[in-house]
Amino acid sequence: MRSSLILSRRDLDFLLHEWLDVEGLVKRPRYAEHSRETFDAVLDLAQQIATEHFAPHNRTADENEPRMVDGKVEMIPEVKRALGIFTEAGLMAGSFDEEYGGMQLPHVVGQAVFAWFKAANVGTSAYPFLTMGNARLLLAHGSQEQIDIYVRPEIEGRWFGTMALSEPQAGSSLADITTKAVPQDDGTHRLFGNKMWISGGDHELTENIVHLVLAKIPGGPPGVKGISLFIVPKFLVNEDGSLGERNDVVLAGLNHKMGYRGTTNTLLNFGEGVHTPGGEPGAVGYLVGEPHRGLAYMFHMMNEARIGVGMGATVLGYTGYLHALEYARTRAQGRPAAARSGREGDDLPPPVPIVAHPDVRRMLLAAKSYAEGGLALGLYCARLVDEEQTAETEEERARAHLLLDTLTPIAKAWPSQWGPVADDLAIQVHGGYGYTRDYPVEQFYRDNRLNPIHEGTNGIQALDLLGRKVVAQGGAGLQLVGETITATTARATGTEWAGFAADLDAAVARLGSVTAALWGTGDPDLALANASVYLEAAGHIVVAWLWLEQALACGSSTDAFHEGKRAAARYFWRWELPRTRAQFDLLESLDRTVLDTDEAWL
Amino acid sequence: MRSSLILSRRDLDFLLHEWLDVEGLVKRPRYAEHSRETFDAVLDLAQQIATEHFAPHNRTADENEPRMVDGKVEMIPEVKRALGIFTEAGLMAGSFDEEYGGMQLPHVVGQAVFAWFKAANVGTSAYPFLTMGNARLLLAHGSQEQIDIYVRPEIEGRWFGTMALSEPQAGSSLADITTKAVPQDDGTHRLFGNKMWISGGDHELTENIVHLVLAKIPGGPPGVKGISLFIVPKFLVNEDGSLGERNDVVLAGLNHKMGYRGTTNTLLNFGEGVHTPGGEPGAVGYLVGEPHRGLAYMFHMMNEARIGVGMGATVLGYTGYLHALEYARTRAQGRPAAARSGREGDDLPPPVPIVAHPDVRRMLLAAKSYAEGGLALGLYCARLVDEEQTAETEEERARAHLLLDTLTPIAKAWPSQWGPVADDLAIQVHGGYGYTRDYPVEQFYRDNRLNPIHEGTNGIQALDLLGRKVVAQGGAGLQLVGETITATTARATGTEWAGFAADLDAAVARLGSVTAALWGTGDPDLALANASVYLEAAGHIVVAWLWLEQALACGSSTDAFHEGKRAAARYFWRWELPRTRAQFDLLESLDRTVLDTDEAWL
Repeated sequence: MRSSLILSRRDLDFLLHEWLDVEGLVKRPRYAEHSRETFDAVLDLAQQIATEHFAPHNRTADENEPRMVDGKVEMIPEVKRALGIFTEAGLMAGSFDEEYGGMQLPHVVGQAVFAWFKAANVGTSAYPFLTMGNARLLLAHGSQEQIDIYVRPEIEGRWFGTMALSEPQAGSSLADITTKAVPQDDGTHRLFGNKMWISGGDHELTENIVHLVLAKIPGGPPGVKGISLFIVPKFLVNEDGSLGERNDVVLAGLNHKMGYRGTTNTLLNFGEGVHTPGGEPGAVGYLVGEPHRGLAYMFHMMNEARIGVGMGATVLGYTGYLHALEYARTRAQGRPAAARSGREGDDLPPPVPIVAHPDVRRMLLAAKSYAEGGLALGLYCARLVDEEQTAETEEERARAHLLLDTLTPIAKAWPSQWGPVADDLAIQVHGGYGYTRDYPVEQFYRDNRLNPIHEGTNGIQALDLLGRKVVAQGGAGLQLVGETITATTARATGTEWAGFAADLDAAVARLGSVTAALWGTGDPDLALANASVYLEAAGHIVVAWLWLEQALACGSSTDAFHEGKRAAARYFWRWELPRTRAQFDLLESLDRTVLDTDEAWL
Repeated sequence: MRSSLILSRRDLDFLLHEWLDVEGLVKRPRYAEHSRETFDAVLDLAQQIATEHFAPHNRTADENEPRMVDGKVEMIPEVKRALGIFTEAGLMAGSFDEEYGGMQLPHVVGQAVFAWFKAANVGTSAYPFLTMGNARLLLAHGSQEQIDIYVRPEIEGRWFGTMALSEPQAGSSLADITTKAVPQDDGTHRLFGNKMWISGGDHELTENIVHLVLAKIPGGPPGVKGISLFIVPKFLVNEDGSLGERNDVVLAGLNHKMGYRGTTNTLLNFGEGVHTPGGEPGAVGYLVGEPHRGLAYMFHMMNEARIGVGMGATVLGYTGYLHALEYARTRAQGRPAAARSGREGDDLPPPVPIVAHPDVRRMLLAAKSYAEGGLALGLYCARLVDEEQTAETEEERARAHLLLDTLTPIAKAWPSQWGPVADDLAIQVHGGYGYTRDYPVEQFYRDNRLNPIHEGTNGIQALDLLGRKVVAQGGAGLQLVGETITATTARATGTEWAGFAADLDAAVARLGSVTAALWGTGDPDLALANASVYLEAAGHIVVAWLWLEQALACGSSTDAFHEGKRAAARYFWRWELPRTRAQFDLLESLDRTVLDTDEAWL
């Protein structure tokens, strides 16, 4: 597969440099060693490795999903080979600190780099994605000893990591997890319980696996306030860093999914006595940070994971769009109405590439607006992580933190909703061919369907946005989003985009008044009943804003690339933003249709 | 699988009897032998056979798709067994005339009967679906001899039929087909060419296959006006009806699809000399009707096929909805906000079935409104077929014909768009479980993705509606749709549905004015550029109307079933119908965004 079918380097350059001024970051001490050249070099490298080593086995991995054989996970060898090349190129370490062997890349560049791998092969790229998140969590909350023992091998790509939250009876509802962590005299804990949906939960890709596991210490506070976080390695680690005994965590089964098949997804049993480290059953676990603060620590990782899931959904939509565009430019069929008019048979002009048909262009333009809009959203949020961590003043950092926190549910849910739509349109552009396994778009469609589910379903994101984020700190987060958007619309005054800006201003005002109306009820069940609609509308406003940002960043250039950005911005303004009006009408009416529907009526 | 997870008999009874007054049809001579009892009996039979013989191998067929072995199609034996039982029960013959061994069922009952099989196993049911369409076309346009030779064995289920239109280079664009039909001295033709996407194009399910093939007789008119229709049997038929020589039509390959895998989908080569009937290469074909009228004959079958595709999309969404509802009632997780308030941990009430969460009810209510709305649409159109054929006066028949003709693109496209959304929601209700192959909803989602593509993509349906149907006869079709809807809204005066009726009246008026605005441009390319949006809006209006119809048909009953109908009608009114406003605004503005987007900008 050509790299131009995976992702658009031109678009990444536009977003990073013409829009987000990523080069400006090199003025900051943390990124002082970097330059446009180092960013370009790592992006070149990512593009090359993703194209040559990840994309080629994307379909193979789909057709040969991991299997459980004699208690171990077997998978195609291409996965291990590709990940070895990824690690050796220093990409696992990319955005980590130099002291851990990393390149200390800005987060926004790291996301752009990693986007290549997700777009080329989402299944294989999940292993390093999870490992990097795991390592970052331990860097933030683990002890120096834990960092030295577990994080260094992760950054070196020798061990991979997981996050083990869900249980068979408790997916979204972590208050109900029952895995127990029993304190031992030596300061360790022993874990007993079952974890479900653990991606990368077992494999032979690396010599060890570092599980980060949520569990409850008996006698602790009830509910989510009694959840602690533990490191549970597959193999215990000796003082010299060599591997010791097999820990009592075992693979109980694999989930067989519709897509995303290259990523093994597991059911893990902890403490069933299959192994007896130190002569005792129970999975040895090491407490991270303080007891009962596990959920807060995990959320640190989950917010990043949520933005990462959004990025994955976006780039799966993006590669679908690029494939559809290629197909539409090369597949000849039919003629436009004007060319047909009054002519028949042999007198007809030859068939045209289907991109000439308006309805095909409509589908491509829609897909483009979702894919590129989602990419802008993901990179904007990644840029906020850099601001949050390296902006000059405390005030700027706090502002970036608040904005990022508010946008996170949107950064996860919006691309998870519209990325799959881009893939759906990509199939439709291909016609019958797109429905066959001879073309890759059907796999993107299946792969992408996971994204609205994992890392918190989109319904959960809706409750997070409306129930938490926009009400926290007296509504400061929503206010900041509004101010940030109106700073953009102000810049559009007197330009060809003034109309777009005016419509966006009106939508932002409406978002504020509708939020007030919902919470003005004083009834959380009523306010939250239609939270998903609220999330959709807020997401469309945010992405419309980012399209206006992109349109303004085009300046007066009239090359095809910038005209394409303008066309997609115009599409989002004229076709997409207006959807929010009916959504706000519904929300403002405090519609009780859903709330008042008795389950017996369904 | 329990039959209550396949389809709702209660809903079918409601639609057929409480709403469509199907019993009233038995007053007509054609259906005089029938009664509520005979209708019930055949529905009972269909429900039983679909449940016991079709549903059980739905997943098996998906996991073991047909394979090509030594030039033949191998498939799991359950398919042939189920189809044998289907035929023996007289269901293939169901709506055919008594003189051909049929039951002469009303078309609307036949569709309800067949809905059970599509919902239980869309892959297996495609074989009889295609065969019945094929037989009906020949009954309408074939000679008596052709009927006796080919149709009788089809109705008896001994031979199956196909429709062979598309070619590798010409899917939607039939003007460009190149299959040739060369006239022979004996009055037959010999066909040469390749056909693509032929469902049921080869198999060992029956001893013969009757292909209906579009081809061009050399020297005929150019383009679509030179297309003729031929019967091309897999085996030639002797005068006594026994099978003769193998015809020169051979299986060249199978398409491997994302879903709908039980239906073999083939590439067929005609006239490549693999077989030489009568000592000559070339596939022997028998002209149906007159030369060059093939497309018109085929459309007779395709309009029925389009309604059938819509029904398939609907019932796949329907079974997805029923599975999601079952899951939501039995899966316990989390608590509503009010139950959580101020309580923690052990003090928390136990988890509730997830149907108690408003966002889950939202998804279920939406899926219900799409599935039941689509079923109402399909059965309404089937009822129109009965009116078209058996209404007392010529005027009534013509009226039914015009209404059906206008609604056909909607009957195909609307369920094809929203049925898959119901399955998407069904996956989301299941969470991670829904994404696994341990639950059936992921298959419904994959299977249903074909429906917006085949039998004319939804983009083609949009051009058919806006470019042909609403402008034909000076706009009489659209006018009739409007009158039919306002006859319903008039009945809502003074009821609790008056608000719904008023909104629907406004939407219908808007549909009329927007249609006028589009064609008022005098520019077909501009008028048709956004035809897909027009189709979506028109579809939502039609289904909103059918929800109002259903709400009114509930009368004052307050049992749970009727309350459910009311809740779904309210949902459609409050949540769905308002989407059309932004769509009409866009259409009325004669938006040129798509039209003016240069392909180089994409």
